[in-house]
Amino acid sequence: MNELALVDRLRRTKGVRGIGDDCAVFRPRAGEDLLLKTDQLIEGVHFPRTMRAETMGERALARALSDIAAAGGDPRCCLVALAVPRITTERWILSFFRGLLRLGTKTGTVLVGGDLAHNDKVHCSVMVVGAVKRGKALTRAGARPGDQLYVSGRLGKPWDQKIVPRLALGQKLVGKATACIDLSDGLSLDLHRLCKESRVAAQLEHVPLVRGANLERALHGGEDYELLFTLSPRAKPPAGTTRIGAIVRGTAGAVWFKGKKLAPRGYDHFAR
Amino acid sequence: MNELALVDRLRRTKGVRGIGDDCAVFRPRAGEDLLLKTDQLIEGVHFPRTMRAETMGERALARALSDIAAAGGDPRCCLVALAVPRITTERWILSFFRGLLRLGTKTGTVLVGGDLAHNDKVHCSVMVVGAVKRGKALTRAGARPGDQLYVSGRLGKPWDQKIVPRLALGQKLVGKATACIDLSDGLSLDLHRLCKESRVAAQLEHVPLVRGANLERALHGGEDYELLFTLSPRAKPPAGTTRIGAIVRGTAGAVWFKGKKLAPRGYDHFAR
Repeated sequence: MNELALVDRLRRTKGVRGIGDDCAVFRPRAGEDLLLKTDQLIEGVHFPRTMRAETMGERALARALSDIAAAGGDPRCCLVALAVPRITTERWILSFFRGLLRLGTKTGTVLVGGDLAHNDKVHCSVMVVGAVKRGKALTRAGARPGDQLYVSGRLGKPWDQKIVPRLALGQKLVGKATACIDLSDGLSLDLHRLCKESRVAAQLEHVPLVRGANLERALHGGEDYELLFTLSPRAKPPAGTTRIGAIVRGTAGAVWFKGKKLAPRGYDHFAR
Repeated sequence: MNELALVDRLRRTKGVRGIGDDCAVFRPRAGEDLLLKTDQLIEGVHFPRTMRAETMGERALARALSDIAAAGGDPRCCLVALAVPRITTERWILSFFRGLLRLGTKTGTVLVGGDLAHNDKVHCSVMVVGAVKRGKALTRAGARPGDQLYVSGRLGKPWDQKIVPRLALGQKLVGKATACIDLSDGLSLDLHRLCKESRVAAQLEHVPLVRGANLERALHGGEDYELLFTLSPRAKPPAGTTRIGAIVRGTAGAVWFKGKKLAPRGYDHFAR
């Protein structure tokens, strides 16, 4: 197989536009800010060798889209840098992109560019560009004491659960949530991050669990890809979300749970 | 070392803005198209284990900027997904970013986001966002029979030569060049690509060599990072560029040199 032939095949696929030039050209609309996110998925670190190519492709895009959701964005396009072992078949690569493009088509994320290389193991970096009304991107930094803390869905999912990026919810929270983050590294670490950026503390009261999960996993497990957000006390929470605590005054980043300080023990690639 | 501390350190560095949120927020200016490019640099594939961290960081950004140059763009910001072995020191990582940010500062490319992970080998994906006047991006697709073929600089550089992305030249070619590509995979392959996209053929007449290079290397070696572009016969070429041939009618992608068809034998990661 050669790269020219593969790129030729990919560019004729639904959900792909304009690949095969030095750069992708993207035309922003008036009155919009763009959201940029990059994320990597590495064999043996984020997934086992046995994961299906389609699942992997979908997952690679879904993780990055979850961050676009957390900023309240509407995804527009993505670029994919993919490295695969030399023995990888063209069929495997096309399956990977089929999985990625299925989610891309569903969410309006067009594949506009990328890079292919050989490597010992599968390594994929996805960059997503999203858009949000100018000045309206949700950030981690706006939570104030008295705000109420909410989460979408239930926590403690097994790591290989399908990721459904909460794009519709994120867009609904624009102009409403005071802060937002996606739960990709565990509630304790991600809540710590939100509080640290907002220079506040949090009182965690309740953790909604998925069936079969224990509290430890829900607090520190990572891989939930739900949105954690704060609303002013008067705001009505969107349907399907659960109040789990409140923002309080205190040391920036401190999280209290059942009368004790909760250590940020979620998934930090560089801490273990 | 942990990721929180490292990100804290990085975000206080010159040339870095707004990292530490789910997404980077980028505000496009009116009347501009954006150029998006991703590129990966893999230990053992694109560079040896012995390469200095600073050189690697600079090179990772320079390669992507060369593509922005080829589209006539002005670079604005970048995101970096970096995976490093577990034993890597914080000092190494900061050196990597020092090299990257030195070139970033020089070219106006702000580091706005990224992702860090562990991996057996160093693996870096850089995404660059550039800007160009609306509708004016240079592409590979506009060369017409009769156009003259030019190249910046001389060809056949050793692979580890410092990359100087030809940003000023690229911007000068906007509204002037009919097609443009950067030479990252060798003249024979990149000229083939330009011709294929433009649905024309080319007659290569002359190849300006760097001192010590042989013709074989200059034709098929890759890693020159010069711009290859076409001008209408009446256009005056910018200073410091060399005419190397002409665009002719013929099979899309065919390249003729010294009366023979030149095979596209540059660096195709998937062909060998």
